[in-house]
Amino acid sequence: MPAFSDRLAEAVRQKGPLCVGIDPRWESLPKAIRESVRDEEADERAAIAFFEFGRKVLELVRPYSGVVKPQAAFFELLGPNGMEMLQQLLQEAKQQGFVTILDAKRGDIASTATAYADAAFSGCAIDGETFPVWNADSLTINPYLGRDAVEPFLTAAKTNERGTFVLVRTSNPGAGLFQDLVCDGKPVYRHVAEEVAKWNAATIGSCGLGDVGAVVGATHPRELVELRGVMPDVWFLVPGYGAQGGNAADVKAAYRADGLGAIVNSSRGITFPFHPDAPDWEAKIVAAAQKAQSELKP
Amino acid sequence: MPAFSDRLAEAVRQKGPLCVGIDPRWESLPKAIRESVRDEEADERAAIAFFEFGRKVLELVRPYSGVVKPQAAFFELLGPNGMEMLQQLLQEAKQQGFVTILDAKRGDIASTATAYADAAFSGCAIDGETFPVWNADSLTINPYLGRDAVEPFLTAAKTNERGTFVLVRTSNPGAGLFQDLVCDGKPVYRHVAEEVAKWNAATIGSCGLGDVGAVVGATHPRELVELRGVMPDVWFLVPGYGAQGGNAADVKAAYRADGLGAIVNSSRGITFPFHPDAPDWEAKIVAAAQKAQSELKP
Repeated sequence: MPAFSDRLAEAVRQKGPLCVGIDPRWESLPKAIRESVRDEEADERAAIAFFEFGRKVLELVRPYSGVVKPQAAFFELLGPNGMEMLQQLLQEAKQQGFVTILDAKRGDIASTATAYADAAFSGCAIDGETFPVWNADSLTINPYLGRDAVEPFLTAAKTNERGTFVLVRTSNPGAGLFQDLVCDGKPVYRHVAEEVAKWNAATIGSCGLGDVGAVVGATHPRELVELRGVMPDVWFLVPGYGAQGGNAADVKAAYRADGLGAIVNSSRGITFPFHPDAPDWEAKIVAAAQKAQSELKP
Repeated sequence: MPAFSDRLAEAVRQKGPLCVGIDPRWESLPKAIRESVRDEEADERAAIAFFEFGRKVLELVRPYSGVVKPQAAFFELLGPNGMEMLQQLLQEAKQQGFVTILDAKRGDIASTATAYADAAFSGCAIDGETFPVWNADSLTINPYLGRDAVEPFLTAAKTNERGTFVLVRTSNPGAGLFQDLVCDGKPVYRHVAEEVAKWNAATIGSCGLGDVGAVVGATHPRELVELRGVMPDVWFLVPGYGAQGGNAADVKAAYRADGLGAIVNSSRGITFPFHPDAPDWEAKIVAAAQKAQSELKP
């Protein structure tokens, strides 16, 4: 299997930088999907609908995007049934040829971090047999606990040819409360960025970028430019484009001259550009994905 | 139902500050438990064993501890089956009268944070029916994303009379990489602590402490003293006692003069003080819990 960074590069070369975020909410699902599960048990209904909707989204966006990012929180909200559908959806995405990012923002210390990393990548080994868990190509992680807490994720990613995306500068309006604190003349997010650049340096693939990525919000265009300079060989996962207010011109600051270097996520903008009762929801998803692909072209 | 802070105070008054962390690993489980599930399907075996072991631990430690903290990562590693057992174990702990802390270190923005918070506390609402998910008394959360990302957790906790524990100073050796960066004359962890003190101020219960707690590692005794001063009314969840090297004298710096204010976690030290083949593992758990309760007495 090619390195994670090279698989990502191939996806971006083929389809462009659009990453489709899958953040399902029961009340936003198309009426047709909700009705199709009406006869299921009440506590399984939403989970089945999440999978059916997710699978349909994958089929619809496939010409326009090579990377998908399911958001673990929305599946967790449906409990174990939801987690089962997250697992199936990640598998379905892999089978359809997508590079997958599990957006779970995990972070913990020592063997606990290893448990999360194994769940994300290699699976669970019991009595010599290994069972896949999420089997994602990559995982978002939170750096607050420091290098030794990030290390187990990097190690597991390396062993399994997967990738990570470390939160550097998040897209929310209040991201700066701690991320912008200035220490030794540089904001905290920049200290994190410099560490990410170091962690990434040992993982550069044939595409010239590495397997340790950074999350940098589209809602901070100046920081995007600054951080591209600090992390020249790092893949950026850029949330905040579309519904959160980041525009296509801004996010292009994250691209390298070769057109690689960033994947730009849109969740609601691509997957929910319709009223739940609209009969033409599929066409609306296709149109939104097509428009985003075109806008984001390097 | 009394406020979270008051339920915690009652547990500490009755049983002392010991919190038992439940971090099950298949290969560390008592042989007797592993053998009891031998005939189960391979991918369900470990999950069932985790629940059986966890339930037994609850019964054994109940005289010595009123608070338990299952670690989500180890259940996630078993996939959806593991998550189901986490759910059942949290319910079992509640039924046995424990105050529960779901250690999941969640953190995300806006409606995603709300989804995690609803999963932790209120459950999932589908078509007017609500299904419990984790139904934990409290949840650990990561502050890196800033106040607007923490807010949904605080709001959901308030609505449901639950609590949160915000990572301030973690117990791992490399915690300082970002947490110790000095900004405006104060380390980052102290900036976080001051925010936690503010968030907590609106939630003070009859016990004089609030519902927004802080995670402060026992492995940093000086910071424990400093942070008790910065957050006088905040419950501390203190990991790192026992197996990680923090001792009882050190952690007492986290107690207030009234003996309240801290719960001190021990995971491996209480739940795995035996060789997996040892027949007397139950007695060893009891002895470890009894010793910890006695050492930690305010």
